[in-house]
Amino acid sequence: MTAPGGMGERRAGYTPSLVSGTHRFLHFQCIQMRQCHPDAMFHGKAPMSPEATAPVRKFRLLTDTLIHAMRSGAMKPGDRLPSVRALCRIHQLSTSTVRRVLEDLEAAGLIEAQPRRGYFVLEPRMPSPSPSASRPQKVAVAPLALRLFDALRDSHVAPFGSPFIEPAWLDLDRVNYHLRQAARRFSPERGLRDLPPGSDALRQQIARRALHQGVTLDWEETVITCGAMEALNLALRAVARPGDVIAVESPTFYGLLHAIENNGMQALEIRTDPARGIDLDELDAAIPRHNVAACLLMPSLQNPLGFVMREADKQRLIDILERHRIPLIEDDAYRELAFSDVPYRPVKHYDRSGRVLYCSTFSKAFSPGPRIGWLAAGRYYRETLLLKLMGTLATPIPNQMAVASYLQHEKPDRRLAQLRRRLSGQLARLADEVERHFPPGTRVSRPAGGYVLWAALPDNVDTLAAYDATIADGMSYVPGTIFSPSGRFGHCLRLNGGFDFDRDALARLARLGRRLTTG
Amino acid sequence: MTAPGGMGERRAGYTPSLVSGTHRFLHFQCIQMRQCHPDAMFHGKAPMSPEATAPVRKFRLLTDTLIHAMRSGAMKPGDRLPSVRALCRIHQLSTSTVRRVLEDLEAAGLIEAQPRRGYFVLEPRMPSPSPSASRPQKVAVAPLALRLFDALRDSHVAPFGSPFIEPAWLDLDRVNYHLRQAARRFSPERGLRDLPPGSDALRQQIARRALHQGVTLDWEETVITCGAMEALNLALRAVARPGDVIAVESPTFYGLLHAIENNGMQALEIRTDPARGIDLDELDAAIPRHNVAACLLMPSLQNPLGFVMREADKQRLIDILERHRIPLIEDDAYRELAFSDVPYRPVKHYDRSGRVLYCSTFSKAFSPGPRIGWLAAGRYYRETLLLKLMGTLATPIPNQMAVASYLQHEKPDRRLAQLRRRLSGQLARLADEVERHFPPGTRVSRPAGGYVLWAALPDNVDTLAAYDATIADGMSYVPGTIFSPSGRFGHCLRLNGGFDFDRDALARLARLGRRLTTG
Repeated sequence: MTAPGGMGERRAGYTPSLVSGTHRFLHFQCIQMRQCHPDAMFHGKAPMSPEATAPVRKFRLLTDTLIHAMRSGAMKPGDRLPSVRALCRIHQLSTSTVRRVLEDLEAAGLIEAQPRRGYFVLEPRMPSPSPSASRPQKVAVAPLALRLFDALRDSHVAPFGSPFIEPAWLDLDRVNYHLRQAARRFSPERGLRDLPPGSDALRQQIARRALHQGVTLDWEETVITCGAMEALNLALRAVARPGDVIAVESPTFYGLLHAIENNGMQALEIRTDPARGIDLDELDAAIPRHNVAACLLMPSLQNPLGFVMREADKQRLIDILERHRIPLIEDDAYRELAFSDVPYRPVKHYDRSGRVLYCSTFSKAFSPGPRIGWLAAGRYYRETLLLKLMGTLATPIPNQMAVASYLQHEKPDRRLAQLRRRLSGQLARLADEVERHFPPGTRVSRPAGGYVLWAALPDNVDTLAAYDATIADGMSYVPGTIFSPSGRFGHCLRLNGGFDFDRDALARLARLGRRLTTG
Repeated sequence: MTAPGGMGERRAGYTPSLVSGTHRFLHFQCIQMRQCHPDAMFHGKAPMSPEATAPVRKFRLLTDTLIHAMRSGAMKPGDRLPSVRALCRIHQLSTSTVRRVLEDLEAAGLIEAQPRRGYFVLEPRMPSPSPSASRPQKVAVAPLALRLFDALRDSHVAPFGSPFIEPAWLDLDRVNYHLRQAARRFSPERGLRDLPPGSDALRQQIARRALHQGVTLDWEETVITCGAMEALNLALRAVARPGDVIAVESPTFYGLLHAIENNGMQALEIRTDPARGIDLDELDAAIPRHNVAACLLMPSLQNPLGFVMREADKQRLIDILERHRIPLIEDDAYRELAFSDVPYRPVKHYDRSGRVLYCSTFSKAFSPGPRIGWLAAGRYYRETLLLKLMGTLATPIPNQMAVASYLQHEKPDRRLAQLRRRLSGQLARLADEVERHFPPGTRVSRPAGGYVLWAALPDNVDTLAAYDATIADGMSYVPGTIFSPSGRFGHCLRLNGGFDFDRDALARLARLGRRLTTG
């Protein structure tokens, strides 16, 4: 076993002052974590709130330590906790204190007492699957989104409500470099490549990167767009008309709802499990019943839930699409931010008949500067091309050149691996904070990537009602109601963990928790 | 009077070999031109086809000289031509040759013989006003536009069909410079300005430039867009719904028709005079009759006709809009390319109640690289903002920064004045060529700016039918049918004069003329 001081120094983000000889339990967990998960070094960031560091409040420390051990996977569901006596000894606490900690954790649904056997870790309480589909709905969430954006411009507001990752964590400098080079090279002759479908070089680089990740994309069916939002809009318009019914996950990213709203279509919410994704049985039944024209889904790293559908489910989804002869618009915006080292395959990869319109973007993992998105449109390519022509005509050429050049010349994989570890640690830490401060019964998502958390609070909580006071207190978040056309997630909220939340930001988060607890 | 050699050298594009002592008439006209029109030096480019230079075909030279004198304004409608005897003497031609030239010009409708008085210049034969409005039409011109774009990528095809000016004539280097600077400065903090409505600095610079030209624009009602096409789409969606009737000029730019088509609306063609613009009486009557939801017009430097509506007509248009309480979407894309030194005022300038949605772009006169457009949306600002959010979310920030910085730091007016003179000369020369080679009865527009010509051929000509053979011959053009939802301009075509058409390109143009003449 490594000496305490040495460990503390080796582990980035670890607060050495916590590593005293008395906290062997904590050490033990950390070592376990390093052995069981390659991301553990990052996960191991001090699970304490900064206020607690001096004087160390032992009660709080034990609570934090146990929660963190469970969240990080160091203690798994079914594992038995150390005995009360052992905890007393290791943490130098009285029996009554340790018992209070354990009773609190039991009340929070994290552990359960089994008579004469001790305390056992329970299955994590993820948010429940959403209710079943009711009926197609008109969508009108954009005005709220616009209001939420106002807060993002205020640098005094901690951006837990932002849809953007901290840009400094991306590769802005290198992308800027390629943009400068592109601006130097942009010439009359290149101007004509401005026309849809976009730069051949860029389309080929996108397909090459996909191939590198084991995914087949046909560059000749790809259209370059002004960001992923345009790609989603083009895809929807290519396959459906105003009034048509579009099946979506429930909850779903409000950007997808914007695209549906923008085109006067209706959304049909399909029951969705926060761990496994859309309920395929319900989808299969709903398609003929509601005459669904298309599905608009995020099967991987869904926003806001963070799940990745299993490969077998993705294949089954393709079968369902084939049987009903309807298209899937697949938004895969967060692809590069999956925590697993094994890249997942999008549904598009299993598509043999060109029914999947695959949308993605350069903004989420590289740089939001160029605003380059794309759409591999399958059998809908020509229709998409016409719509691009009629919509925005062309995507800026220097921006296309810059992204093509970046993808050709840079080696982003090492940086991305670091970023993913960082995000994984950020989200684990943020989840700890939420579980600690939010109302009892709050359930937090366990995303497989990306940088957002979804928190489902008790049903009687109204997260929108608390919004203005929270902004006034210097923190934003996204009220859950915006993730559904029916507004069924009024008791939920989304938090961005993709920025450096400091002690002050976390204090505001704690105050939000109290605000939501007291109503 | 300047010595022949000196003049030839002083006038760019003038072929000295033509200026021999025997062609005093030509000299006389050139001097007149310089006196009567500031652009005349540019207009004065040799009006001969290059093939004719050696041996000088005197018959052809006299024809060209007279046509050019009339087109350039050196000889005005009502002016008497020199007598046959004078022409014989000056040009050292036989009486029969001079008579044949004059009879040809009379047959072409350019001059008329008055018994015992001589030959007189007739009013120029502009294309006739278009027919009256029939009924609203579904629009479906985008597939043809996409086909036309294919030819633009082929550098062996002379781009008479291009919608773009030769980019080398714009300010690419300086815009590239500002884009490089922007790429250097793009930083995390600036990322949030990415959100609609767009950069405040850019919106202010746009309003400032407008003010400098005597036009009032409110920067706070302006939304920055991905090119003018997005601005047109946003504007249409802000004021009308699928199926609604939109009044347009006839003919109108196919890009406007694309926006209507893109949104499932109907177009109502209003009779339009190639010199004065839309028929306001007909518009006034059509609005209630067809329940017109909005007008989508180019009141200034209309594409393809090139007219600028008179200021009084613009004011009357505002009155009509007010009376019927409908909005105008005003596309003013070519604003910076007006030939007159006195800037015109857009309809927006007279708008007191926020009914005009004013669209323009940086692409036409500065650089197509950044693809920055804008929309001053008046009372429809908030709706426009929501639509931008739902459509493409944001316009690339480095591009916005570059344009703002360009407008702030560069002094483009001198360059623009030169460009306008150049374009004026290009279009005059191109019109000469068309009148010489196209079927008798062809009428050519007299644009007040921009870089395109509209040619109306005899009614029985089908310009689309000749398209493929013309592409195969190495030249593109835009068939007239695409400028109307009803396809009523099948006998017309649009030519781009905004590039360096060489002898070879003009030979192809002449062959197109023969192709259209023989059917």
